[in-house]
Amino acid sequence: MRSNLKLAANVHPTASEDELRQLEKTYCSHGDTVHYSQKPKFFESCDGSFVFDAAETPFLDLQMWYSAVNFGYRNERLNNAAHRQLDRLPQVASQYLHREKVELAALIARDAEHKFGSKGRVHFNVGGSQAVEDSLKLVRNYTGGKSLMFAFEGGYHGRTLGATSITSSYRYRRRYGHFGERAQFIEFPYHFRGPKGMSKEEYGHYCVQKFARLFESEYNGVWDPKAGKSEYAAFYIEPIQGTGGYVIPPMNFFKELKKVLDDHGILLVVDEIQMGVYRTGKLWSIEHFGVSPDVLVFGKAITNGLNPLSGIWAKEEMINPTIFPPGSTHSTFASNPMGTAVALETLKMVSETDFGASVMEKGAHFLEGLKELQSRHAIVGDVDGLGLALRMEICGPDGFTPDKATLDWMSDEGMKGDLAVDGRKYGLVLDVGGYHKNVITLAPNLMISREEIELAISLLDQLLTRAERR
Amino acid sequence: MRSNLKLAANVHPTASEDELRQLEKTYCSHGDTVHYSQKPKFFESCDGSFVFDAAETPFLDLQMWYSAVNFGYRNERLNNAAHRQLDRLPQVASQYLHREKVELAALIARDAEHKFGSKGRVHFNVGGSQAVEDSLKLVRNYTGGKSLMFAFEGGYHGRTLGATSITSSYRYRRRYGHFGERAQFIEFPYHFRGPKGMSKEEYGHYCVQKFARLFESEYNGVWDPKAGKSEYAAFYIEPIQGTGGYVIPPMNFFKELKKVLDDHGILLVVDEIQMGVYRTGKLWSIEHFGVSPDVLVFGKAITNGLNPLSGIWAKEEMINPTIFPPGSTHSTFASNPMGTAVALETLKMVSETDFGASVMEKGAHFLEGLKELQSRHAIVGDVDGLGLALRMEICGPDGFTPDKATLDWMSDEGMKGDLAVDGRKYGLVLDVGGYHKNVITLAPNLMISREEIELAISLLDQLLTRAERR
Amino acid sequence: MRSNLKLAANVHPTASEDELRQLEKTYCSHGDTVHYSQKPKFFESCDGSFVFDAAETPFLDLQMWYSAVNFGYRNERLNNAAHRQLDRLPQVASQYLHREKVELAALIARDAEHKFGSKGRVHFNVGGSQAVEDSLKLVRNYTGGKSLMFAFEGGYHGRTLGATSITSSYRYRRRYGHFGERAQFIEFPYHFRGPKGMSKEEYGHYCVQKFARLFESEYNGVWDPKAGKSEYAAFYIEPIQGTGGYVIPPMNFFKELKKVLDDHGILLVVDEIQMGVYRTGKLWSIEHFGVSPDVLVFGKAITNGLNPLSGIWAKEEMINPTIFPPGSTHSTFASNPMGTAVALETLKMVSETDFGASVMEKGAHFLEGLKELQSRHAIVGDVDGLGLALRMEICGPDGFTPDKATLDWMSDEGMKGDLAVDGRKYGLVLDVGGYHKNVITLAPNLMISREEIELAISLLDQLLTRAERR
Amino acid sequence: MRSNLKLAANVHPTASEDELRQLEKTYCSHGDTVHYSQKPKFFESCDGSFVFDAAETPFLDLQMWYSAVNFGYRNERLNNAAHRQLDRLPQVASQYLHREKVELAALIARDAEHKFGSKGRVHFNVGGSQAVEDSLKLVRNYTGGKSLMFAFEGGYHGRTLGATSITSSYRYRRRYGHFGERAQFIEFPYHFRGPKGMSKEEYGHYCVQKFARLFESEYNGVWDPKAGKSEYAAFYIEPIQGTGGYVIPPMNFFKELKKVLDDHGILLVVDEIQMGVYRTGKLWSIEHFGVSPDVLVFGKAITNGLNPLSGIWAKEEMINPTIFPPGSTHSTFASNPMGTAVALETLKMVSETDFGASVMEKGAHFLEGLKELQSRHAIVGDVDGLGLALRMEICGPDGFTPDKATLDWMSDEGMKGDLAVDGRKYGLVLDVGGYHKNVITLAPNLMISREEIELAISLLDQLLTRAERR
Repeated sequence: MRSNLKLAANVHPTASEDELRQLEKTYCSHGDTVHYSQKPKFFESCDGSFVFDAAETPFLDLQMWYSAVNFGYRNERLNNAAHRQLDRLPQVASQYLHREKVELAALIARDAEHKFGSKGRVHFNVGGSQAVEDSLKLVRNYTGGKSLMFAFEGGYHGRTLGATSITSSYRYRRRYGHFGERAQFIEFPYHFRGPKGMSKEEYGHYCVQKFARLFESEYNGVWDPKAGKSEYAAFYIEPIQGTGGYVIPPMNFFKELKKVLDDHGILLVVDEIQMGVYRTGKLWSIEHFGVSPDVLVFGKAITNGLNPLSGIWAKEEMINPTIFPPGSTHSTFASNPMGTAVALETLKMVSETDFGASVMEKGAHFLEGLKELQSRHAIVGDVDGLGLALRMEICGPDGFTPDKATLDWMSDEGMKGDLAVDGRKYGLVLDVGGYHKNVITLAPNLMISREEIELAISLLDQLLTRAERR
Repeated sequence: MRSNLKLAANVHPTASEDELRQLEKTYCSHGDTVHYSQKPKFFESCDGSFVFDAAETPFLDLQMWYSAVNFGYRNERLNNAAHRQLDRLPQVASQYLHREKVELAALIARDAEHKFGSKGRVHFNVGGSQAVEDSLKLVRNYTGGKSLMFAFEGGYHGRTLGATSITSSYRYRRRYGHFGERAQFIEFPYHFRGPKGMSKEEYGHYCVQKFARLFESEYNGVWDPKAGKSEYAAFYIEPIQGTGGYVIPPMNFFKELKKVLDDHGILLVVDEIQMGVYRTGKLWSIEHFGVSPDVLVFGKAITNGLNPLSGIWAKEEMINPTIFPPGSTHSTFASNPMGTAVALETLKMVSETDFGASVMEKGAHFLEGLKELQSRHAIVGDVDGLGLALRMEICGPDGFTPDKATLDWMSDEGMKGDLAVDGRKYGLVLDVGGYHKNVITLAPNLMISREEIELAISLLDQLLTRAERR
Repeated sequence: MRSNLKLAANVHPTASEDELRQLEKTYCSHGDTVHYSQKPKFFESCDGSFVFDAAETPFLDLQMWYSAVNFGYRNERLNNAAHRQLDRLPQVASQYLHREKVELAALIARDAEHKFGSKGRVHFNVGGSQAVEDSLKLVRNYTGGKSLMFAFEGGYHGRTLGATSITSSYRYRRRYGHFGERAQFIEFPYHFRGPKGMSKEEYGHYCVQKFARLFESEYNGVWDPKAGKSEYAAFYIEPIQGTGGYVIPPMNFFKELKKVLDDHGILLVVDEIQMGVYRTGKLWSIEHFGVSPDVLVFGKAITNGLNPLSGIWAKEEMINPTIFPPGSTHSTFASNPMGTAVALETLKMVSETDFGASVMEKGAHFLEGLKELQSRHAIVGDVDGLGLALRMEICGPDGFTPDKATLDWMSDEGMKGDLAVDGRKYGLVLDVGGYHKNVITLAPNLMISREEIELAISLLDQLLTRAERR
Repeated sequence: MRSNLKLAANVHPTASEDELRQLEKTYCSHGDTVHYSQKPKFFESCDGSFVFDAAETPFLDLQMWYSAVNFGYRNERLNNAAHRQLDRLPQVASQYLHREKVELAALIARDAEHKFGSKGRVHFNVGGSQAVEDSLKLVRNYTGGKSLMFAFEGGYHGRTLGATSITSSYRYRRRYGHFGERAQFIEFPYHFRGPKGMSKEEYGHYCVQKFARLFESEYNGVWDPKAGKSEYAAFYIEPIQGTGGYVIPPMNFFKELKKVLDDHGILLVVDEIQMGVYRTGKLWSIEHFGVSPDVLVFGKAITNGLNPLSGIWAKEEMINPTIFPPGSTHSTFASNPMGTAVALETLKMVSETDFGASVMEKGAHFLEGLKELQSRHAIVGDVDGLGLALRMEICGPDGFTPDKATLDWMSDEGMKGDLAVDGRKYGLVLDVGGYHKNVITLAPNLMISREEIELAISLLDQLLTRAERR
């Protein structure tokens, strides 16, 4: 053997799944999310709305890689863009320019200018968390070094140390020492579990009022009325909470919240990593709510999951070259050409038809099916949706008490691949979310067909029935 | 117009470079590193050791995307791996398994076990900074929440907030508020600019002694001798400094340093993001120095720049499922299949020949050429190299005073594309690094041919001559 | 001139007040609270409930140095204790022992054991803030280094950096950079300004429920239900808020709150610096509320203002010599003999009569007078009291809108010394507090006579009348 | 029993020392420094240079409460000032003015203006640590919120959390969680344990050069040359290290250091808490070194230990009412009249004779005695002194290896009270300091008589002899 790489001979090129499983047990960190499941599934190929295991069983995917593959697995047009880029310019240092980066930035910024009424610029990176970190740097820079942020209970913005500081779950911080920039987490109008006797809109108003209380006097802790200064630089929001369980706030909520922020000089940073790129039927989910962000963070589906390209758009006053000069932040793969080429094709693709309308229509149809399931299954506590961001809450027989155990069981059951429709075996890929981990967060292929929606409802029905009988 | 994406019509599909430049000026953040240069270059395609502009002028790349494209632009074998994966399983949620992830982790971990004598595991992410953040979480978790680290003057570990805390340059922190986990930066034996009258090895020893002083008593500030505890959890090192100027320490240095760390229970985290994957002729550059890491961070060239896959390897005691359980850290694109497939092919490729020996041989030849240039050009203050990580320091006429201005000029001059060899026009892509930004950090294609090395020396010669005449 | 101290000749030994005022303007920092007032008053002597200016005008003091001089100015018995100690052992290094320190600690700890049902120990320091800092160290040590605390909106615990972190007002932090251990501030049942339509007890219950919400799931941000661990180490409370405006919570409040804390392993630290030592008719004000502290902080009136002695009492499990060993914290003047001697005499003095009953009786009488004033003056929005901690809220004509300007005017007016009762001129010393700085926080001499109470009411009456006429 | 204070009957008014010891064991925190000693000593009275136990054995005190009682126990003139103030105005709220505060501030500020060439102001507090905290707030405010400081290895500035951050010993931070403002500790020219072959001055120069290296490039970590900004706001120094072992730097040291600070906009904060007020023969010890502070912190001996008054002087530009406005910082007992009255008398007293000259003369005589002891006792490794701040380092037989155990034994032995001179029994009070806790830090009464110096040398001689024989 001539190499100093002591390895090649040791792995069978055609290792069996059992052998792979043994290797995984031995050499893979279990610190990621794979081992949330007892026997994690291997997948071998994918197509459209389906992933396939070695036995070629189709698994209908209702989560699409946490909404990263919005346009279907191996979308032909987007895959072709990737193939083309591989053959021409798959690599180029991010300190030089390539056409696709510039065109992509221009598309996003012009669209934002049209929608939000402010000129702005785009800064790329890779991975949602790194874009969130860039947004934190942007905010800290613009506010003279302020590093405290508001964020929502139930909010999730990533797992780097900075992103973890503004992510609500204490579990993500617990074993990692001190977080000196921990956000202050504010109640989100999660109406299904909110106070009794309030309408959704009333609850939204209530949450804003509760937040506004903090600015009543200097002794409420965050505001110096004499100086007119806030201790907090920005409010980080997901318009619809992702990990928090696809919770959709009332339509009045962000408008009222934004007024409080504007009155106190607090920036609005909108995290569109999971809900952006047409998941809710609009390019950015915030477009539903009638407010404009100061900073917008995107990632995931912008490349349909083919590349971790991410980025931020920010208002000119925060990101112009004078205030955010060359060298402000950087990463090797930021604006990598594989990512920008696919993202550019993605945005071109969706602009050629009224893509949003199609998503809204499919979403309405899907939600109808979910409601029908709710009417027949007592353990379905809540269903809701905006576009194709849908939720189904699994509860005890009272239809309210969160039942994580049953949902875990359903999720494992779906992975067995033994559900049957029209004599064909299927698996069902579900993702679990929510404050109590009892919510099916549904993010199907935005190009899902009507037949596949029927299939989805049918498979969910079977799962619910099995769950009730177990 | 049917789409709500207000953009498609606005960008000419065949925008000219001037038009692109105008768009870039208007809509791109200048906060990355593009605008370090006055007139940043557009590139259109790439091949082997070259990138090409619209006029198809070949630019010999001596930096290869900060050492991310170690195996040449559009390396056929690795590109084919990418094409294949695109056609089969380009997307799969990281909470499920795919063969390539497991095989890649096993290859890396078995190799590390062989070389470093410790069983361990691999945890993937995307982007070097995110892997660094994961390593920080791993260290903080393992040490009961300790969040202070040692790192080197001249060291660079990324630009997320956590990585910035352990990156030496204050410029990267200055406008971003308080960094409560700022590392303590320790002198690195940068011999060319070290104290006069010491050999390289003596200087290495001196630096270790200076560090060891800190442990002499509780009042030196970092050590409680009574409790036998250190205030600092880990020491982050780049074996050869990257951004710091491809500085190669003496061979005794890390062995002596490791002893001090071991004596005080401080972990060693080795950042191989830039120097790993055969840049120095070994899979990991630390292999040259006779010490074993507790944690090793990798990225960049593991996919030859086709995908931002990154990761960490850590000793079993730090990363086993009991101490680092499911859900410890996570990101959507961690272990994305495009990345793992290419990385797996990369490691297979290098294992099939004695790749390291070839790199060492090419490196020796290249360094010879650089030394010859040094002998003829007074402004070349220092040249050095390990494998194909090479450096050339541009100085004033005294051969010592750092001359950033001249190097900037050379760098721009190389981008003109008007250097000529054998009647053909060439450009030359150089990267600038070092404490004083006067170092050409050379990271050529590891598969560079002998002829291309001659070409490189010749082009550098022309540039140096022009620089001396300007 | 023989001295190197260049000063003695420059200050007239008998400088006039005008000269002093000029010196003060030039050489004194105005960063303390003196210049809250336009023309700060000089005082020359004091006695009982009165301070006197150079003209020997008596100023009835209804604030008694923010409740530090609970037992009257120049209390004969306590002054004598000071004289005696000066003559015998006024100085002794705190690393040696003196009788008074031990007796004082024993008195406090035995009393606490009796009342709170837990053995404990006392640790002395000087200045309330330093005792608060010691308590933070105690909590951080006991909880394995956790440094996040809950505290109340309206709460005040001092101005050192650590104490400022847990003090609600942002104004106190605003100009001092980042506070990485900023407390999370929780709503206090300040009933007069609470939600309409709730009884005082209902509001107390509401505040506890609002706090308890934070523990509903990991995504509410402070609690990991799986691990059963809280992100927050302790809750710092003032049983009755001092600077916050002498706000008295409902009697059910702390009992309900304590249950939430106990359920989640969060310590209760009770700050008695302002309300302790019989201000409310009990040695510690928390005694009214039926809960036991884990740590109790005291200061101010324990020496009747003759010495800044302060200290903490903590439960044995937190402060025993194994967990809090020698050298854990320290300051030169901690347990200084002047302070311990006077404090010991203070506690002996109050133990010889039913001091508490007398305070409750005087307090009831005083409150009756305040209520009578309220019935006649529309601008008196709220009066309340517990023992001799009393409050009167100055409002607009609606009896609700906070009117800081009028109270500032009243406070200055009282300092003029031209109020008249029975043909004698008086001044009136008032302190301003509250979330909106519109509250007279009344802390009269605990040994105030019935006649002096009548005088106080009469002087307040005059001031209110003047205020309404201005 | 009529009181609710459940305590009075429990403590014998005339408890024996054994009874007290039992109470102390049970109810006193051992977290202070008392239990560094196995059997801590009770003292009953004091006079001049002596403290006395219950048996009236005189203990010659060579440490004077860590230099707080510079003018002798129960100094008649200063005690009288205290008696007088007790009888007239012992208490007055710090928001009002009293003559002594103003006169004292004026004396200090005028003297500083004369010596340091800058107008400035004085801000009072109690306890050295609180004054240090105030200085941190002043610096953070003045530098726009910067909170990182340089300080010295061996330096000590107090035990509040903020002061602990800038105090070198990790032991003081170890059990208390994260310190996000931990200072960067710089080598102090402790010549006796410095590098061999350097003169004291050369070592001072070397230390400054080592510090100056940090500013060579942005990659040395603390300086952005492009922006001309330092990451660190101020350098905290003790001119002569106190707890660090009364280490006296070379005379060139601070001048050279100050130049580096001035070149990089870093403030100089001088902590005179232990070495100020004539300990070294000047009002402020920094006066010896030819540099002017930006901020000066004082405490301890300013009241001869009768009251914890402390304070800061700062240059006008940092502390004028515009930049440091009313309410910037505050504590109840700041500028308390007992403290200011005694401090004023102290400064008047020392100004009436050439007090400094007398200290220098006594110091020289004492040092001569120490040198003579060194010549006769091998275990005396180093003696040195400036004024009456003197040091004697106890070592192994080689005269160099630190021997903490022997010094601990000597210290306990001195507390036995069985040393004899001229047939009279004496005890000897020594304090232990230094990086290795093997230094006798001698701070005798500044009014010590020649006979008492002889006695001191004689008692030390006996102790050394006993130690060598044990």
